[in-house]
Amino acid sequence: MSKWYSDSGFQDDIVLSTRIRLARNIKGIPFPNRMGAEDGKKVIDLVSDALSELNYKFNLIRLSDISEIERQKLFEQHVISSQMLKNTADKAVFVSEDDAVSILINEEDHIRLQCIYAGAESQKAYELISKVDDFLSERLQYAFHEKYGHLTACPTNVGTGMRVSFMLHLPALCMTRLADNLFATVGKLGVTVRGMYGEGTKSSGNIFQISNQVTLGKTEAELSTNITDIVNQIIAKERELRRRIIQEKGVSVEDKIMRSYGIMRYAKKISTEELAGHLSNVRFGVSLGIIKDITIKSINEITVVTRPAHIAETGASTAFERDVKRAEIISSIIEKKEE
Amino acid sequence: MSKWYSDSGFQDDIVLSTRIRLARNIKGIPFPNRMGAEDGKKVIDLVSDALSELNYKFNLIRLSDISEIERQKLFEQHVISSQMLKNTADKAVFVSEDDAVSILINEEDHIRLQCIYAGAESQKAYELISKVDDFLSERLQYAFHEKYGHLTACPTNVGTGMRVSFMLHLPALCMTRLADNLFATVGKLGVTVRGMYGEGTKSSGNIFQISNQVTLGKTEAELSTNITDIVNQIIAKERELRRRIIQEKGVSVEDKIMRSYGIMRYAKKISTEELAGHLSNVRFGVSLGIIKDITIKSINEITVVTRPAHIAETGASTAFERDVKRAEIISSIIEKKEE
Repeated sequence: MSKWYSDSGFQDDIVLSTRIRLARNIKGIPFPNRMGAEDGKKVIDLVSDALSELNYKFNLIRLSDISEIERQKLFEQHVISSQMLKNTADKAVFVSEDDAVSILINEEDHIRLQCIYAGAESQKAYELISKVDDFLSERLQYAFHEKYGHLTACPTNVGTGMRVSFMLHLPALCMTRLADNLFATVGKLGVTVRGMYGEGTKSSGNIFQISNQVTLGKTEAELSTNITDIVNQIIAKERELRRRIIQEKGVSVEDKIMRSYGIMRYAKKISTEELAGHLSNVRFGVSLGIIKDITIKSINEITVVTRPAHIAETGASTAFERDVKRAEIISSIIEKKEE
Repeated sequence: MSKWYSDSGFQDDIVLSTRIRLARNIKGIPFPNRMGAEDGKKVIDLVSDALSELNYKFNLIRLSDISEIERQKLFEQHVISSQMLKNTADKAVFVSEDDAVSILINEEDHIRLQCIYAGAESQKAYELISKVDDFLSERLQYAFHEKYGHLTACPTNVGTGMRVSFMLHLPALCMTRLADNLFATVGKLGVTVRGMYGEGTKSSGNIFQISNQVTLGKTEAELSTNITDIVNQIIAKERELRRRIIQEKGVSVEDKIMRSYGIMRYAKKISTEELAGHLSNVRFGVSLGIIKDITIKSINEITVVTRPAHIAETGASTAFERDVKRAEIISSIIEKKEE
C-alpha cells in the first residue's frame, strides 16, 4: 500500500497533504438524498463500466460489504467522509491501485472524485484528478448547465464542483495566538478553515484544513491558483514566526519538543488526545531540524495509524488496551527509524 | 575521585548508601560551641599530627580556605554537615584519599569520623571507621567516662557517639501510602527517619535517611546490628510491595517509569524539584529491570552532580541557566551509558 502518508511532498514540513475533490452527478438520475435503491445501483454500475476502460486501475469497495471498523479506517485515512460511516446503502468507493485517487459513489453527490498527495502538491493533484474526470465525462452524461456549470446536490458546490484542501500544521501561529486573526482574514478571501477531519471537527495538534469556499464563477485552474496563493502566504507567515520563536525562546521550545519526543518514544500507554499535542511538538521539532532521528513521513504514519479504528483493528477492545497498543506502535515506528 | 556514588554496593537497588559516624572529643578542650580560636586550631593540629603517622592518607581542607560553592558541594556529597556551610571559623575536614572516610573538625564535636559506602554496607563501613578511630584513640586523649562512655556536646550522642544511617529509596512504600505507618512503627524501635540531607530536611524523590536514635547502653556492634536488622525488614517490605505493584498495575507503573526516563534523556531544562520525581521513577525502573540502558551508579551520580552547588560550579548563574545545564549533564550521563 502506498498511502499518501507514506510518501513525501513539497513543503511537507508544514503541509501534511493536498486534497482535491470534484463533485459530479449523472444527468437523469435523482441526487442521492432523493434516489431509490435501483438508482443507487445504477450509478455504481455506470461508473464501474466507465472505469473498466481506463488503464489506470480501480478497485471497488461497497461500504455495506465491509465492517464498521474498516469503514472507520477509510475515514481516518481521509478516503471516505463521515457521512458514509453509518449510512452505507448503495454507497461505494473506487480506490485507484496506487491509492492516490478515490471515487466516492452516492455520498452527497453521485460522484466525488478525490485525489490526495503528501505535501503542497495542488498542481500534481489537479493534473491527475482532471485526467480521470475528463475520461469519465466522455463516458457518462454529467449533469451540466451551460450557465452554472456542474450541478450538485448542495448549491455551494455548483460550478466547478471543486474543493482544494490543504492540511496545514501551524504550531508557530498557534503558539503566538495569531492563528485566529489570520483565519478571520483569509475567511474574507473565500477560504474556509476547519479541523483535521473536515466540517464540524475540531482542530487537534495545531493541524488545520484550509480549503476554498467558492466553486462558482471561476475556472478550476483559477480556483486552484487562488487557494494555493493564500496557502503559500499562510506558510510564509508560519515560517517567519518559527524563526522568531526559535530566536526568542529557543531552549524552552526545544525543551517542549524533546520532552514530547521522549514521551512518544518511551510511554507505555497514551491516549489520542495526549498524542495530538506531542505529535505537533515532534513534527515541529523535525521541521526545525532539532529532531533528526525520525522523518516527517514517520510522523504522518503515526498520525494516521494510531487513530482509534486503526488501533481497534489490532484487537485492542478497551480504552486502556488501545492506549497501550498505541504506545507500542509509536515506539516501534520511532525505534525502526532510529536504526 | 572515587566518590561513594560512583561505586556499587549490596542491595544498592534500594539502599543508596550506608554512613557511619562516630562523635569524639579531646579531653581538656572545651566543646566547639564554647571554645576560642586557639582551641579550635589546637584540635586541627592534634588530629593532623596523629593522622600523619597513619599509612591511610588524608587531605586537610580548611573550610575558610574554600569558596561557599565548594562547601555547598561537599555538603551535597554528604561530606560536611549543613552547620559547617556558613560558620567556617576553625572548621576543617580531613578527607581520605579514597574518599571513603572524612573527619569533621570542630563541628558540634571536636571530631566526627564518617565513613560512607554505596549500598547496604554497615559491616564494611564499621570495620574501616573503627580502624581509624582505634588509631586516633591511641594518639589523642578522648573525653571518655567509664560509666557513660564517650562524652559529646549533645547528650543524645553520649555513649558510643555512633550514628549509623542508611539512605533508602522506597517508592513502593510511598505509592501504597504505607510509608508513614511503617516509619511510626520503627520510630518506637529507636529509629529516626529523615529527609535526604539529614535533620530538618524534607524527603524528596521517595528517599529517606534512616538511622539509630540511641547511642547509649549498647556496644557499637550491637547498635549497628540492631539498626541493620530494622533496615533489612524495611527493605523486605519494600521488595514485597514492589512485586505486588508490578503484578497489579504493571503497565501503568512501567508507563510512569519510562516517561520519566524519556524526559530525563531528552529534556533541555529541568529543575531539581522536577528531577527528584523522575529520578525516583527511573531508579525504580532500573531496579525492576524495566530500564536496562543505565545503571544504579549512573543514577546516584546524577542525583549528586545535579544538585544546585554542583551545577553552580559550572558557571550557570541564573535559575534558568542552571536548569539548562542540569538537563545537559543528565543527557550526557545517560547517552554515555547507552553506548
